[in-house]
Amino acid sequence: MEMNGNEIKEMQKKYVLQSWSKQEGLNPIPIKEAEGIYYYDYDGNRYTDMASQLVNLNLGYGNKDIIEAIKKQAEEYCYIGPSVASKPRGELAKMIIDLLPDSFGKVFFTNAGADANENAIKIARMFTGRKKIFSRYRSYHGSSFGAGNLTGEPRRYPLEPGIPGFVKFFDPYIYREAIEFKSEEEACKFYLTKLREQLIYEGADNVAAIVMETITGSNGIIIPPKGYLPGVRKICDEFGILMICDEVMAGWCRTGKMFAFENFDVIPDIVTFAKGVTCGYVQLGGVAVSKKIAEYFDKNLLSCGLTYSGHPLACAAGVACVNYYKKADILGNVEKQGKVLGEKLEELKEKHPCLGDVRYIGLFSCVELVKDKKTKEPLVAYGKDPNGIMGKVIGLLKERKFMTYSHENMIFICPPLIITKEQLEEELEKLDEVLTIVDEKFI
Amino acid sequence: MEMNGNEIKEMQKKYVLQSWSKQEGLNPIPIKEAEGIYYYDYDGNRYTDMASQLVNLNLGYGNKDIIEAIKKQAEEYCYIGPSVASKPRGELAKMIIDLLPDSFGKVFFTNAGADANENAIKIARMFTGRKKIFSRYRSYHGSSFGAGNLTGEPRRYPLEPGIPGFVKFFDPYIYREAIEFKSEEEACKFYLTKLREQLIYEGADNVAAIVMETITGSNGIIIPPKGYLPGVRKICDEFGILMICDEVMAGWCRTGKMFAFENFDVIPDIVTFAKGVTCGYVQLGGVAVSKKIAEYFDKNLLSCGLTYSGHPLACAAGVACVNYYKKADILGNVEKQGKVLGEKLEELKEKHPCLGDVRYIGLFSCVELVKDKKTKEPLVAYGKDPNGIMGKVIGLLKERKFMTYSHENMIFICPPLIITKEQLEEELEKLDEVLTIVDEKFI
Repeated sequence: MEMNGNEIKEMQKKYVLQSWSKQEGLNPIPIKEAEGIYYYDYDGNRYTDMASQLVNLNLGYGNKDIIEAIKKQAEEYCYIGPSVASKPRGELAKMIIDLLPDSFGKVFFTNAGADANENAIKIARMFTGRKKIFSRYRSYHGSSFGAGNLTGEPRRYPLEPGIPGFVKFFDPYIYREAIEFKSEEEACKFYLTKLREQLIYEGADNVAAIVMETITGSNGIIIPPKGYLPGVRKICDEFGILMICDEVMAGWCRTGKMFAFENFDVIPDIVTFAKGVTCGYVQLGGVAVSKKIAEYFDKNLLSCGLTYSGHPLACAAGVACVNYYKKADILGNVEKQGKVLGEKLEELKEKHPCLGDVRYIGLFSCVELVKDKKTKEPLVAYGKDPNGIMGKVIGLLKERKFMTYSHENMIFICPPLIITKEQLEEELEKLDEVLTIVDEKFI
Repeated sequence: MEMNGNEIKEMQKKYVLQSWSKQEGLNPIPIKEAEGIYYYDYDGNRYTDMASQLVNLNLGYGNKDIIEAIKKQAEEYCYIGPSVASKPRGELAKMIIDLLPDSFGKVFFTNAGADANENAIKIARMFTGRKKIFSRYRSYHGSSFGAGNLTGEPRRYPLEPGIPGFVKFFDPYIYREAIEFKSEEEACKFYLTKLREQLIYEGADNVAAIVMETITGSNGIIIPPKGYLPGVRKICDEFGILMICDEVMAGWCRTGKMFAFENFDVIPDIVTFAKGVTCGYVQLGGVAVSKKIAEYFDKNLLSCGLTYSGHPLACAAGVACVNYYKKADILGNVEKQGKVLGEKLEELKEKHPCLGDVRYIGLFSCVELVKDKKTKEPLVAYGKDPNGIMGKVIGLLKERKFMTYSHENMIFICPPLIITKEQLEEELEKLDEVLTIVDEKFI
């Protein structure tokens, strides 16, 4: 059925419920085609994807290797159940385990990040025989009941009253901490002491796992101070608690390392992943567990399962995608462009009164808008933006075809990892322009 | 990388955690290729898929229309986020709404059945402003925390203590009810009266939804007596409770109707679906809601979301798959072969002392093995099969390349809906043989 852009837009508005939205007044751009870091509508407009969609499209659009792998696997067979041996399933699991530290053993595959986190906490509970799960307030782990109860931010609220035994602690958000730290060491000491104290009051022996985004993603690219994650690791070891790193967003080269935890000299017990493992070409997620955990399930029932665990078409896409990271030296490009991005963000911070903080690692970054640099008063109060100011800021970027999203007073800059220096500079010019408007009109 | 069957099997065993299993001693068959109702290993053995994998592969393997649709969409673009308008996404949503009763309005897409059920209960809670959710003991709705708390059978246990407000009631399992009913009418009256009574004691005004597999699937193809579902509908209307039919397994022509609820003269408020919508060629699930519910979210935030909601590649596969059901008159074939299946199962029940009950509708069926037809003592006690008898029975079928699975004392016969009369008869011969062995050796 041939349709024009407007018809496609209207059809989606009429029949599809869109995530995290009031449906009235939605105005989705109809996509016609996409290539590299750009997508195009039916009027020939070109949009630059500066958020890699939902920070999943690490390799951008139209990656030939992944497309060919999908086509080839589709010709062989698309699907077979988890209890049958399938080549791409085993191959991808092996590739992932080979990329992880030697202590890792096996992978349990899921469809995405939420169910990866769901299964990680189930596995942690089974392995430890304990029930409580610690996670952080400024976090997003998915919106299904388990993942949503891990989540600390307001997207958790519709699931409340919450599941008993899910406990939240505060993340090392130094920029907005109630006290000013003299050094990163002091910050680490503070956060780790508070965490240990909270664990003890919750009964550390009842805690199965501490679940953290290695680097907090959609709650503001909160990069832990040096020493923080090794400190958490030490506390986990002290009490026999599993350390689970959610690498759904931060994994797969995003931060300049294959996995984000490699930036911090720490080895978790469980890593959850999704997004960048296939760049969303086909949906895939998973839970990588240590050998010790894997071995536990030799003789104990793994009470986890889903129809599409290790979906062959998805795994074939994953094999091609993970191979491409190496083949195209994506880590090399992230290092180069990450430097360009970081320098430019620091420049912008100097220049714009509205830029309170810029946080970046690799091509994972956000900027925090404030009314006043000194008081750090955010451009919009937490959970309150009655005049839709952040929507207007994102709209100004969108007018310039710089496509991204915001969270509270923050704007995300997480382009596909294939972006070139010229492309990045062109887009950051647009950001500069928009920040000038914010300086003049919104603060 | 070229590998032989044994290497593929060993790779999967070494690196992949398999669903619902102790990992030691697993011996997965490595699949080389697949076509129609058969798949093949590397030694040229042909296996007949008499369970459509996990009752999802309704159109069998190698469906050219779906494969071509995947290849075509992969060339255009594989993925774009939920907030961008994508043709296959809108098109499939429209097709689904057009297949449902006029009262239905919109679709929220997910990756599979579990997250479809997760989101259905979130939507029901938001729409009604109520918290409690009723579901049934003999049910499986998925294994993530929300779907797993809906689930009534033991696969729920690792998620316990459960989420507050999830209440279970008993299903109309007439064959094993503690009393013998004089008629279907009497059975309906009993089950509906008990349900209404339980609702009142739980506080019916606090109940958001009653969630049911329209026909209970992996807990034993429990087909509700005529009048039961309309009776539940009436109770829902009385108390302002939403009726949610989980059609993940029973939908998409499986029972001889496009959706299973059409067999029972009833219209639910919400239908969840997955499996047959794409036959698993690409993972897809969703929640179809009434116009009234859809309209509520015009002005109220839909607090549901996932990265891959309405994945374009999956939706493109869905469009081709749903079109194929019509094009190939799959409903016509299910009617014909369902009759063959039903007659043969009745014959087998007459013939074999070990066959306590046979239940079937369309090509959705199971047989229940007993030690004694009169006492109905099951071949294995609930949750207890220390000698692995059911595994042996499934093994006898597997020796004959009749591939299916069991649950408690039941064996499932749910072949792809494209099966021919000759193929079906050939396979049911094997079942007959194995039941003779069960008669002789196991009871």
